[in-house]
Amino acid sequence: MLQTDQKVSLAVSTVVFALRPHPTTGRMTLWLPLVRRIREPYEGRWALPGGPLEPDEDLAASAQHTLERTTGLTPRYLEQLYSFGAVDRSSVADRDGRVVSIVYWALTRPEEMARAIDGENVEWFVADDVSGLAFDHDQIVRYALDRLRAKITYSPIAHAFCDDEFTLAELREVHEAVRGCRFDPANFRRQALASGWFEPTGRSVQGTSHRPPALYRFRPSEETS
Amino acid sequence: MLQTDQKVSLAVSTVVFALRPHPTTGRMTLWLPLVRRIREPYEGRWALPGGPLEPDEDLAASAQHTLERTTGLTPRYLEQLYSFGAVDRSSVADRDGRVVSIVYWALTRPEEMARAIDGENVEWFVADDVSGLAFDHDQIVRYALDRLRAKITYSPIAHAFCDDEFTLAELREVHEAVRGCRFDPANFRRQALASGWFEPTGRSVQGTSHRPPALYRFRPSEETS
Repeated sequence: MLQTDQKVSLAVSTVVFALRPHPTTGRMTLWLPLVRRIREPYEGRWALPGGPLEPDEDLAASAQHTLERTTGLTPRYLEQLYSFGAVDRSSVADRDGRVVSIVYWALTRPEEMARAIDGENVEWFVADDVSGLAFDHDQIVRYALDRLRAKITYSPIAHAFCDDEFTLAELREVHEAVRGCRFDPANFRRQALASGWFEPTGRSVQGTSHRPPALYRFRPSEETS
Repeated sequence: MLQTDQKVSLAVSTVVFALRPHPTTGRMTLWLPLVRRIREPYEGRWALPGGPLEPDEDLAASAQHTLERTTGLTPRYLEQLYSFGAVDRSSVADRDGRVVSIVYWALTRPEEMARAIDGENVEWFVADDVSGLAFDHDQIVRYALDRLRAKITYSPIAHAFCDDEFTLAELREVHEAVRGCRFDPANFRRQALASGWFEPTGRSVQGTSHRPPALYRFRPSEETS
């Protein structure tokens, strides 16, 4: 177990999802930031933010540092997704040998996105539209999308896209954006309340109609892994 | 991303769960195989089956090979669990530098367990009782147990402990063994059928009573990730 193997090296990359309006339909949809590669292999192609694991850095810390450096984001929701290590995962001959990538994913809240910076070689894309990325990153993005769409059906993960307090209409918009469909407001409301994942704060949205929508918050004790 | 870093090396380890009767209570419970370390660090201590990742070996293949070599098992259910890479995860000074472990977990069916072999330095233990393992393997076993107990509540994963066809009483016994509690047979039956994860085969257990229990099978299309 402790024999070193110099031919395999380790990188940490992150898929960061945020919700923004779709450029043509205007409906909320999933976006992610990509970094343009400035050296071979895959020079000029887009790739997930990431880098080699530093010897004195924990895995999640490595993901966090690259993310902050490239996008200015420090998302509260950052979780390990999967490790990708197929022998042939880079189709381009790689002088430095085989690389195994431990991939994290992050979900960003509106207030976190307000702090996002645009780097010179960083751009945001509609997640479902990306293709032709460097290495096996197309496959990694697809895996992350599948996992997000599965997990939102059996866990309260949607709250990671919301601020601390949110209306049920905002929560429904998150579900619709992630799953790419529409929900009946009354049915959605009933199911969201029955799940036990959310609770009323006792407050309402200020300064709107004479029946202002109630604000809810996530109940942390009920989170499933 | 492609700079090699010679100070971090990579291992693949596996947590293998199987159901066997508890040595004192006789009730079915979770067991796992451990391998006794025959060299430093942690010489003489028990550890998860595993080894360094070979340069020409995919991650899952590496897990599979170590597992077959140490236990004779080739479980159909083998899935990546998590990667453990804390800088200080080995408390013993390690001449070979830092090791990141990509951990798989396997669930074994009764017919698979029939082929298990006992190696000289391999032994099976009650999963909840293990402690004092090498490296951070106590923590890894705890993580795998937590994940299994969470996942069985929202996915049909229990079928991975069953043969192709099983009775609802056998399925209930799996849930009881994993979650460490008892379920009312009628309630369990109703919930299992309502889940849509299982379907009747149209066959029954042969040669038992005049009302032989019906056999069910897993419906693969409904699996959640």
